[in-house]
Amino acid sequence: MNIRTALPRLAWAGIAFAGTLLPISAFADDQDVRDYRSHVMKTMGEQMALLSKITKGKAPAGDVVAQAEVLSISAGMLKVAFTPKVLGGESKPEVWDKWEDFSKRLDDLVVATADLAKAARQGGVAAVTPKLGGLSCKGCHDTYRVPKK
Amino acid sequence: MNIRTALPRLAWAGIAFAGTLLPISAFADDQDVRDYRSHVMKTMGEQMALLSKITKGKAPAGDVVAQAEVLSISAGMLKVAFTPKVLGGESKPEVWDKWEDFSKRLDDLVVATADLAKAARQGGVAAVTPKLGGLSCKGCHDTYRVPKK
Repeated sequence: MNIRTALPRLAWAGIAFAGTLLPISAFADDQDVRDYRSHVMKTMGEQMALLSKITKGKAPAGDVVAQAEVLSISAGMLKVAFTPKVLGGESKPEVWDKWEDFSKRLDDLVVATADLAKAARQGGVAAVTPKLGGLSCKGCHDTYRVPKK
Repeated sequence: MNIRTALPRLAWAGIAFAGTLLPISAFADDQDVRDYRSHVMKTMGEQMALLSKITKGKAPAGDVVAQAEVLSISAGMLKVAFTPKVLGGESKPEVWDKWEDFSKRLDDLVVATADLAKAARQGGVAAVTPKLGGLSCKGCHDTYRVPKK
């Protein structure tokens, strides 16, 4: 784990200070950080697939609020997961080399998914459909994720 | 899709009546049902992994409420996903042969995960840890899921 996330092993202390002053406590080691990112991203991938099915009329419209909420909550975990400068996994070094851009994209994603969840609550599938198209995984993945082999 | 989930193709009508009088509208075809189950289950698997990490001090304690909420919300989607008697995927026929038992287990899971989320909100990781151990995926999977090859 990089110096940015120093104060290591304060697993239960709750708050360490990174460049952004985010609380990023409590990863025991570097692999934990990579695993955490992977789990959160996979949840988001499943949720995007679920929401895509719903907007295409292939899954229950009645679930749209719950699925959008899950996506939105999960997006909120990404900043904590990526703030530690732990290279490897599927992250390119560009995540931290261009942290200002990447970090802003995470913030934008949190706002966009919260907006999606709000749309779901207020307008159901009809309100979610146009917004979901604007939520691109690819935009960030092309730049910041190691391509799948 | 079985007769229990008849009134097919009412993808946008919102409500069809199964034996349980649950609203289980809106799967376009059988493969959609299987895919939906798979996506929800995968989200739950990722969330269980995340919560396990948190309770072991390997991931941020500050995320415990959000992760438990996601698990709880996702559990609520299982009944809709399994009520249609669509065989295949990783589901054994026993799901519907023993529907009373399976269905009760889903209901129990919804209660247990809601309880977990409440514990997270009220008592954080310390409250979640003992309850997480009581949440076994294996209990149902051994009986109702096709074993991985």
